[in-house]
Amino acid sequence: MTNPAPIGVFDSGIGGLTVVHELMRQLPHESIVYFGDTARVPYGNKGPETVQRYSREIADFLESRGVKAIVVACNTATAHALPVLRAERRVPVIGVVEPGARAAVAAAGSGPIGVIGTAGTIRSGAYDRAIHALSPAAQVVARGCPLFVPLVEEGWTDHAAARLVAGEYLAPIRAARVETLVLGCTHYPLLKPLLHEVLGPGVSLIDSAEETAAETARVLAERGLAAPPDATPTYQYVCSDEPSRFRELGQRFLGRPIDRVESHPLG
Amino acid sequence: MTNPAPIGVFDSGIGGLTVVHELMRQLPHESIVYFGDTARVPYGNKGPETVQRYSREIADFLESRGVKAIVVACNTATAHALPVLRAERRVPVIGVVEPGARAAVAAAGSGPIGVIGTAGTIRSGAYDRAIHALSPAAQVVARGCPLFVPLVEEGWTDHAAARLVAGEYLAPIRAARVETLVLGCTHYPLLKPLLHEVLGPGVSLIDSAEETAAETARVLAERGLAAPPDATPTYQYVCSDEPSRFRELGQRFLGRPIDRVESHPLG
Repeated sequence: MTNPAPIGVFDSGIGGLTVVHELMRQLPHESIVYFGDTARVPYGNKGPETVQRYSREIADFLESRGVKAIVVACNTATAHALPVLRAERRVPVIGVVEPGARAAVAAAGSGPIGVIGTAGTIRSGAYDRAIHALSPAAQVVARGCPLFVPLVEEGWTDHAAARLVAGEYLAPIRAARVETLVLGCTHYPLLKPLLHEVLGPGVSLIDSAEETAAETARVLAERGLAAPPDATPTYQYVCSDEPSRFRELGQRFLGRPIDRVESHPLG
Repeated sequence: MTNPAPIGVFDSGIGGLTVVHELMRQLPHESIVYFGDTARVPYGNKGPETVQRYSREIADFLESRGVKAIVVACNTATAHALPVLRAERRVPVIGVVEPGARAAVAAAGSGPIGVIGTAGTIRSGAYDRAIHALSPAAQVVARGCPLFVPLVEEGWTDHAAARLVAGEYLAPIRAARVETLVLGCTHYPLLKPLLHEVLGPGVSLIDSAEETAAETARVLAERGLAAPPDATPTYQYVCSDEPSRFRELGQRFLGRPIDRVESHPLG
């Protein structure tokens, strides 16, 4: 049994394109509809109810496009809204927190696990819960890093100011001698060189994109929802603010050109 | 003729409270309804149409509360939405750009004028136009400073990273030997000590809050809308996301305690 319908993927903005990049690599026959909520970005320090409301509206939009599954490619939306989306939707809903936690537990052995993310993701405790569900005795050191997203969006990933900011945010992670660090925000993979510089080359940086794509493949296969093996995929990019900035910045996150972006105002 | 109705004031978030602070000082008998669009903050790098849509919704809300005038206490919303709001509303609408430009032209004499603001405010050219309308030969040096708002919201106004960021953003301002700098964002008054450190103590920092409050006083007086001279003012604070964070951060911008914040989801 196969299903040619697209996978719906959403994020507060463009960061979720790092997950799309990995979905394209691992599932080259799957079509994708991506929604970036650029009119209301960021979600990182907004309240759980607000993020739930936004996530529901986007899930409605994606379902109106006939998606067969929804990937919440945003850590904050996963942290606040995954349970309500799972309870309410007919299609399977995959988040980024559980796959990231699973990869971290596998990599860390008995060592401490560091988690960095937005203020909202860290405050929600979603990673703590997901890691402890897999490894009850794990030591988790979590730190919100609110300035990382604006630094990435400004393109200052190699700036001396970014180095100072990272040094301060990561001090408790270094102090705990963490060797496995979860990048709990889809913007952070663009900071990998800086994080290695601050934490040392030996630290494993867990980017949940790869593991989330693998989880998506598993879910589709289990439910008979995978695309036909000879399908030619289509990719649709939709955002709630102006398409031009999405396109320009999005190509950096996706790692390939974006031809066309639709605008669909929400909110 | 007097009018006891409140003045409506809005901003993308909490920055507009610096304007409220000044309104309270200059117009101690006026009641105020403040709306902070914390569920969709920031406006700084969003498109003009999105910012216009948000501004209209907020103006509708404020009019539903019976305001006698609307102060757009947000530079980005003023830059993108002031003309449409003025064309559509029955009540007078006051922005922050013209008052700031007027104060800058008065302070600068024949010297160059620097303007810093969000990417959207600077791209809109609103300050350029307002300054040149008053002083056609003025030399204007404008620079978008996207990281200043997140730095202020993180409370890192005196951090070494903020100093590095300011040094880079302000390089063209320093190179032009600017002695008058418009703070074209309501978050920036909290950076005054840092800006003086980077630019020297002799630079005049034009904070449009003071001039905007004076303009509001003039408009109310001209139209017979001022509050009775013995009126006891009431202050209402409303935001679109969770009230708790608004209250906590808002007190720093307002410079006085905030007792109660209402939530009114928009968007």
